[in-house]
Amino acid sequence: MTGKKKSAQASVEAMYRVFTVPEAPESTLSRIDQNISRNLAGFLQEHIVAVERDLSDVEKDFSDYSIPEKPVFVSEQAQFLLDKLVANSVHTASPAFIGHMTSALPYFMLPLSKIMIALNQNLVKTETSKAFTPMERQVLGMIHRLVYQEDGAFYRKWMHDPRYALGAMCSGGTVANLTALWVARNRAFPAEGSFRGLHQEGLFRALKYYGYEGAAIVVSRRGHYSLRKAADVLGLGRESLIPVDTDDENRINTDALRDKCLELQRQKIKVMAICGVAGTTETGNVDPLDAMADIAREFGAHFHVDAAWGGPTLFSRTYKHLLRGIEKADSVTFDAHKQLYVPMGVGLVVFRDPSLASAVEHHAQYIIRKGSRDLGSTTLEGSRPGMSMLIHSGLKILAREGYEILIDQGIDKAKTFAEMIEAEPDFELVTRPELNILTYRYCPENVQEALACADPLQAEKLNTCLNRITKFIQKTQRERGKAFVSRTRLEPARYYNFPCIVFRVVLANPLTTKEILADILSEQRELSRDEGIEDEISILHQMADAVLKQATPNARQA
Amino acid sequence: MTGKKKSAQASVEAMYRVFTVPEAPESTLSRIDQNISRNLAGFLQEHIVAVERDLSDVEKDFSDYSIPEKPVFVSEQAQFLLDKLVANSVHTASPAFIGHMTSALPYFMLPLSKIMIALNQNLVKTETSKAFTPMERQVLGMIHRLVYQEDGAFYRKWMHDPRYALGAMCSGGTVANLTALWVARNRAFPAEGSFRGLHQEGLFRALKYYGYEGAAIVVSRRGHYSLRKAADVLGLGRESLIPVDTDDENRINTDALRDKCLELQRQKIKVMAICGVAGTTETGNVDPLDAMADIAREFGAHFHVDAAWGGPTLFSRTYKHLLRGIEKADSVTFDAHKQLYVPMGVGLVVFRDPSLASAVEHHAQYIIRKGSRDLGSTTLEGSRPGMSMLIHSGLKILAREGYEILIDQGIDKAKTFAEMIEAEPDFELVTRPELNILTYRYCPENVQEALACADPLQAEKLNTCLNRITKFIQKTQRERGKAFVSRTRLEPARYYNFPCIVFRVVLANPLTTKEILADILSEQRELSRDEGIEDEISILHQMADAVLKQATPNARQA
Repeated sequence: MTGKKKSAQASVEAMYRVFTVPEAPESTLSRIDQNISRNLAGFLQEHIVAVERDLSDVEKDFSDYSIPEKPVFVSEQAQFLLDKLVANSVHTASPAFIGHMTSALPYFMLPLSKIMIALNQNLVKTETSKAFTPMERQVLGMIHRLVYQEDGAFYRKWMHDPRYALGAMCSGGTVANLTALWVARNRAFPAEGSFRGLHQEGLFRALKYYGYEGAAIVVSRRGHYSLRKAADVLGLGRESLIPVDTDDENRINTDALRDKCLELQRQKIKVMAICGVAGTTETGNVDPLDAMADIAREFGAHFHVDAAWGGPTLFSRTYKHLLRGIEKADSVTFDAHKQLYVPMGVGLVVFRDPSLASAVEHHAQYIIRKGSRDLGSTTLEGSRPGMSMLIHSGLKILAREGYEILIDQGIDKAKTFAEMIEAEPDFELVTRPELNILTYRYCPENVQEALACADPLQAEKLNTCLNRITKFIQKTQRERGKAFVSRTRLEPARYYNFPCIVFRVVLANPLTTKEILADILSEQRELSRDEGIEDEISILHQMADAVLKQATPNARQA
Repeated sequence: MTGKKKSAQASVEAMYRVFTVPEAPESTLSRIDQNISRNLAGFLQEHIVAVERDLSDVEKDFSDYSIPEKPVFVSEQAQFLLDKLVANSVHTASPAFIGHMTSALPYFMLPLSKIMIALNQNLVKTETSKAFTPMERQVLGMIHRLVYQEDGAFYRKWMHDPRYALGAMCSGGTVANLTALWVARNRAFPAEGSFRGLHQEGLFRALKYYGYEGAAIVVSRRGHYSLRKAADVLGLGRESLIPVDTDDENRINTDALRDKCLELQRQKIKVMAICGVAGTTETGNVDPLDAMADIAREFGAHFHVDAAWGGPTLFSRTYKHLLRGIEKADSVTFDAHKQLYVPMGVGLVVFRDPSLASAVEHHAQYIIRKGSRDLGSTTLEGSRPGMSMLIHSGLKILAREGYEILIDQGIDKAKTFAEMIEAEPDFELVTRPELNILTYRYCPENVQEALACADPLQAEKLNTCLNRITKFIQKTQRERGKAFVSRTRLEPARYYNFPCIVFRVVLANPLTTKEILADILSEQRELSRDEGIEDEISILHQMADAVLKQATPNARQA
């Protein structure tokens, strides 16, 4: 063999090795693997660097744009990932990371995920998933029953019938919402007479045939941005996502909803879907689903409920009443990687009527043939992993009781935190928790008093100043790395709908304690005295004093 | 404490335990975990039952529709999964499982996946992903460069610029194709004058404003079904996916493509996108991309290339020329869980022009704010896992050289298998491999002779009979569980375009040997003698004899 041939042969052999020889037990990667199995919390604690590095600095470690010509050793890449990626990732499982919808996960999810990845099934068709297909149908059936409470005969008839689907598994809530609205849109303009249906002929001809000027999705102002994205994707246009005002509790105003639907009707715009929100992303409030269902029926609109966050509240005997009316929805979105405590990347939508999914049914010759049991015929996605195995395991191992405890304790903890905030003179609770989400901000007592008697212009000035402070505290606390709350922008009626930046807190991690919450508040109080913000703080106090001084005794009483 | 309270307390404690106490090393789940780490191939071999159980029988194990009230032990669920799910799953990594686009995976993917799941990042925003965000941008940049070969200055300028995106990471090729066509649709009808753009006002007003009667996506008959699905989702209607005839090699006929575009133009239908296929799903052929790019330019259409399967052919110095012209595409789909050898659930689309993704940009208040580095503003999906870490690792550890070997050996193996089939008198090669996919069927020599001189009606009869035989052999071989080829339906010109069912073989698993391929053929030959099909076989021979007898010497020569 020539030297060149030899080296080529060596490359081939090295490449085969990675497919045939497991990582040696003493290799870097195996050690990490064992370390994670033995002590996940310790691994995360030890390897994620708490203090934030600037992202533009992190980018330097990921600046090569060429795929390397020559292989690097597995151990080298493993070490690189540990030092550069893991170290600079986010400790989403930390009990002090209460800013987003993440949590610690049950330990069993990790080895189960490994089984799932080892099997590497593809759920698009039974030929690459076999038992995973009935299992996914079972999971959809179980969630369907949690929502709709149909009887045994119903599930025995429909759950495994390959011609129907009780829902669709998706990569997350966004695709679940999109799938539901896709179904709604296609069903709103079905085949009739010479018209072969929107799914065949498209939106342009559908509107022309049915004599409409447009089609709309109606939802509260607090609806998730994925609904606007869906309106765009589906060809309706973002402006077809019609926002309706909410009451002081961030729940849709049903009178305003009805008025809006009537107005759309007058404009010859088809109310294609009404969306209820069961757990608004920013404030965790639940729309009056029962009343919305009636309005949807009145206008012949598909009623979709986005319960990506709040759906699992149905596990709680104490709180499930908050979602009353959800059983009237035509479709409901659940996110499994949220309050079903499954790792990132899985959500689902369930349909009340098992025939609904047929509105988006697709077939091909090499898979998902007509009559097959392949799940891919009614999902938006094609190839998909067997994530439903993790939902299945959660539902079995935690069971209704376990999820109930998680839900109840989250909501109770949010109430406790709300009380703690209200007991602190320097903080203002902006939205009271209905589920386990609340918003608040740093706002000293005298500023609160001033806001209470401020006119719109004064309130705007005070809130503008507070916004800068809130942003500073949130950002600095995140950078320090001990704790994390997120921030968002709300328009409280009491402040003349001026956009106020607030801290947003999601209490889904069962390991978050009252002490951790107290620490978060005290770090924020400490940050309010940071020199980086002292000018703003002093301006704030001056403004508040001026407002209070000027206020008449009458106004102050009001 | 009362008994009830005590039991409630015990439930709470049990529930907390799953969040705080790792699985014991001697537990069922830990043993499986270790077993997989030590010997994945052995685990799969040992636990997956080869012989197929009827799915309706498997369904019995997944027939409960109630979420259990009380928790089951982790060990119990682990055992259940082993016995009922794993046992009845599909050995997609088996070297004899050559029917779909699955393969054995490099060993390092498994422990790396564990790190990814342990970190549980969410790529929608940097606040829940930090270093994963620049890493994903790097992966997109690397694939972008593989396709478009821009220079260093280009990537230094664009790769990490938060206002732009070189692509979008997705759960798979279907969403990647949808994303590309979403971009194409929105850009085909931009804001102008009083019109605020399709993304805002929707398709109905867009077509009216621009004076079109419709919008179409043009692709060869062999385009993936996800394109038709995309046409439906995007509101164009399935009939807007315009199929164009192919040549004998399953590549689009560019004259027919041009004619079709001209015809659409005359009908006032906007040619919104032309899609080239780089690796047809069923036959692995590559469209003449270079010529298609010119036609797309001529009609002002977005040129998308679906290289979900064939994209990684660019790694091969020997075969990359097959994809010539791909660098002229506006967007290109890659599937990472196919020939990048990453576990199920990740694909991506790259855009030639970094500003293209802005056509689908979305923002919200609590995340993906304007100016943020959050990747979620230009992806169809919202929350997403850090799968790009696995692509990153593949690109580093296998490198260009490793992927080249995989691609070259796959194509070479397909050529070898084609020769083996042609050398067998009882088999007919239906489509010759261009990449690593081919189709064939069992078709005895005399039947092949008869087909060569059959008139349309005779050919139809022979092929109808052959279809039943092919279906039987494919299904029975799958059920026996030793090997798996898939089946699809093609319309060969030489058989008057009659739909013929064929075996479809994908040779991507580096562990598939020539011996395995020989065994597959001999099992199929054996199955052709199975009593379940003997009546069909004897009818087939009778028909063939009749055709041959009747054929004039002239016809036989022809």
